[in-house]
Amino acid sequence: MLEELKQAVYEANMLLPQYGLVTFTWGNASGVDRERGLFVIKPSGVPYEKLRWEDMVVVDYDGHKVEGKLNPSSDTATHAWLYKKWDMIGGIVHTHSSYATSWAQAGRSIPCYGTTHADYYYGEVPCLRCLTGEEIDEAYELNTGRLIVEEFAAMNKDPKAVSAVLCRNHGPFTWGKDAVDAVHSAVVLEEVAKMAYRCELINPKVQPAPQVLQDKHYYRKHGAGAYYGQNGN
Amino acid sequence: MLEELKQAVYEANMLLPQYGLVTFTWGNASGVDRERGLFVIKPSGVPYEKLRWEDMVVVDYDGHKVEGKLNPSSDTATHAWLYKKWDMIGGIVHTHSSYATSWAQAGRSIPCYGTTHADYYYGEVPCLRCLTGEEIDEAYELNTGRLIVEEFAAMNKDPKAVSAVLCRNHGPFTWGKDAVDAVHSAVVLEEVAKMAYRCELINPKVQPAPQVLQDKHYYRKHGAGAYYGQNGN
Amino acid sequence: MLEELKQAVYEANMLLPQYGLVTFTWGNASGVDRERGLFVIKPSGVPYEKLRWEDMVVVDYDGHKVEGKLNPSSDTATHAWLYKKWDMIGGIVHTHSSYATSWAQAGRSIPCYGTTHADYYYGEVPCLRCLTGEEIDEAYELNTGRLIVEEFAAMNKDPKAVSAVLCRNHGPFTWGKDAVDAVHSAVVLEEVAKMAYRCELINPKVQPAPQVLQDKHYYRKHGAGAYYGQNGN
Amino acid sequence: MLEELKQAVYEANMLLPQYGLVTFTWGNASGVDRERGLFVIKPSGVPYEKLRWEDMVVVDYDGHKVEGKLNPSSDTATHAWLYKKWDMIGGIVHTHSSYATSWAQAGRSIPCYGTTHADYYYGEVPCLRCLTGEEIDEAYELNTGRLIVEEFAAMNKDPKAVSAVLCRNHGPFTWGKDAVDAVHSAVVLEEVAKMAYRCELINPKVQPAPQVLQDKHYYRKHGAGAYYGQNGN
Repeated sequence: MLEELKQAVYEANMLLPQYGLVTFTWGNASGVDRERGLFVIKPSGVPYEKLRWEDMVVVDYDGHKVEGKLNPSSDTATHAWLYKKWDMIGGIVHTHSSYATSWAQAGRSIPCYGTTHADYYYGEVPCLRCLTGEEIDEAYELNTGRLIVEEFAAMNKDPKAVSAVLCRNHGPFTWGKDAVDAVHSAVVLEEVAKMAYRCELINPKVQPAPQVLQDKHYYRKHGAGAYYGQNGN
Repeated sequence: MLEELKQAVYEANMLLPQYGLVTFTWGNASGVDRERGLFVIKPSGVPYEKLRWEDMVVVDYDGHKVEGKLNPSSDTATHAWLYKKWDMIGGIVHTHSSYATSWAQAGRSIPCYGTTHADYYYGEVPCLRCLTGEEIDEAYELNTGRLIVEEFAAMNKDPKAVSAVLCRNHGPFTWGKDAVDAVHSAVVLEEVAKMAYRCELINPKVQPAPQVLQDKHYYRKHGAGAYYGQNGN
Repeated sequence: MLEELKQAVYEANMLLPQYGLVTFTWGNASGVDRERGLFVIKPSGVPYEKLRWEDMVVVDYDGHKVEGKLNPSSDTATHAWLYKKWDMIGGIVHTHSSYATSWAQAGRSIPCYGTTHADYYYGEVPCLRCLTGEEIDEAYELNTGRLIVEEFAAMNKDPKAVSAVLCRNHGPFTWGKDAVDAVHSAVVLEEVAKMAYRCELINPKVQPAPQVLQDKHYYRKHGAGAYYGQNGN
Repeated sequence: MLEELKQAVYEANMLLPQYGLVTFTWGNASGVDRERGLFVIKPSGVPYEKLRWEDMVVVDYDGHKVEGKLNPSSDTATHAWLYKKWDMIGGIVHTHSSYATSWAQAGRSIPCYGTTHADYYYGEVPCLRCLTGEEIDEAYELNTGRLIVEEFAAMNKDPKAVSAVLCRNHGPFTWGKDAVDAVHSAVVLEEVAKMAYRCELINPKVQPAPQVLQDKHYYRKHGAGAYYGQNGN
């Protein structure tokens, strides 16, 4: 079932090592079929060089395996919760990419220092609080998903305007309109994290870019007035 | 029209990912035909792997498209202004290359710490002020070009002696005698930005190289007394 | 003799330059045959591009060469002591990989800042004290092995739970169930060392990850309750 | 003339971009024929991808071209002086490799923080003072050579025990028994410079490795008591 989606999600997964975002098996991509209410995700712990599209696992929004010989990613419950609560997203990626994970370990949100960031994310990429011991013990992966959704709501952040989050002491999740788009956001996040890191070392007193410049770049690429690319051609 | 120039500009654009200066579509190169008063530039938002030389767009010095099916780069008005005001340049490149952009985000000019810098740029590579909200709202890309030209005049900097600038919170523009030469400057700038960053972390109290050494290296490669390379052979 | 093991150890050695962990000849991998009480190790100073599986040297637990035309690695006595004292390990790797060696030179243990670390190592990766002048003069490589075993005992660390150590002013040793598994740990250690370095530069006051999160990730992959991967499938 | 040496020096030059030590034409390697009192060096400003072994230039110890159609490297006078004064060296390399040049720009000698350094260089790799304005104006490249030889004598450093130097605000020169050996030292220097940089960021109060450990590693590889590699086999 869902053969086309499995192939698309397989290809998105294979982009992760190609872009240098994963070491060994440290990452996973998924994609959703909204009509059927099911998503497809990488199996757990399978090395990328041995991965086949047929190995992709089909899961429902409650994280139950619907089809597949292998166990789904250990982060499946996080993906499931995001799909359940955020109907505007079509794909999710989790990695331990080096710079983004370093910010997550440092427990800091990534400020918007320039237009590379503003072109993709509206405002800072937030770093969440750590889960409590109770939340971890009760249902670690599910509660990771809950925390992401809750904190975005509390911060009044639109997941379409900020398609990335840092889970404290862990690493990034990104999303998009499909699995490949979520990979795209994971690449952008890593670049943005790298430049913010260097930027602070060059100028420890650096401030975020002026809001008017952030707005200009964000809306140059998003929304009704966008004129970047070939959309209005 | 301008088929030869389109091919040259296409090839210059393709060098940008080869040199590791661009991620996705984050960069553009252009080249000018001074006799006809037209320049050729990359279309906006087209991935490098899908780019063809026929896709290059022909534009005049006021930034109006003269020929081409696709929209020109969103930064076209910046290129146009530079060609209009600086008749000594033949090619322009814009990237978000990682180290140069980190300096631009940090809001700092790159000091001349050594001969690698002095071989190419006479004195520091300036980081401009941010555009005001009014300038951004009125005509962001055009005013970026205006600011570059104005500040170079105010600093009494010769664009031939300093073929690079950092637009604050944004990234670098570089130029040269043609599009490939502008790419060359973009590569040099990234190396210089990288070494200046590391140099300051190794010695936070580092001072610029002595002026006499800067002069020696710059004039070893430029001007009537140059003896680097095979020119006097 | 031990042809199969020689081939396995040869292949583990060849992974080291592939993973970017060694420059020139700065590293070695070994693997043990527990039934015969012998191990196989890279010959000393032979460039990887000239290495052949037949060149691997057979050594006993006292570090005496049993078979082989070439001298074994100059670090052989360290490997021998670890095999002699730690019967739970099957392979050992030594490299001068860049980030891990930088921590060793800095004389600091690597704190557990996140789940990438906790997934593999239980608690910090220790940096040992420097050997004394007497220990160095008497039997440098053997005493390196002794110090590793002694300090792990003194710290009450289980070599299976922390499969890596930093020898001060020198570099890392890692181990595993066989030579390839020890290479795996060397790759993980380098990634963990890199992210811990960046993490501290992003937030100089960063604290280790909460113990409950470290436990969660470690035991998600190790021990009776593990559910990562396909083991329980 | 000197065809064999030209081929060897050509190959050493081609190793520089392969090892990632040069950008564009920023580097040169030379090798000497001690019997004839001549050395062979890369021509000035020729891109590596266009370089041919026949292009190598033959020069005497006073820096005069003896044979060759092209101008020799602009750094020829430095090489010549070193060959003239240091009869124990057979090859010289100059690069602007990124980490070593960052130290040179920072005006700091590279301390010996560990065994990677001690395996190759006995004690710190010195960063020289800057040339004076007079020295630069009179004979920049020749006086660079003079300064290297003078300061090594003043520091009582043996060029065989420390085969590398940092020219302040400029970059490294390295040497060896032939051109390829000098390239080898250039690679080692870059690795050592990189790890010393990271080491200081991890522990700003780090001290050099104990002298007894430096001695152990240096003499494990050099001199009558050496036992690294296959020499005593």
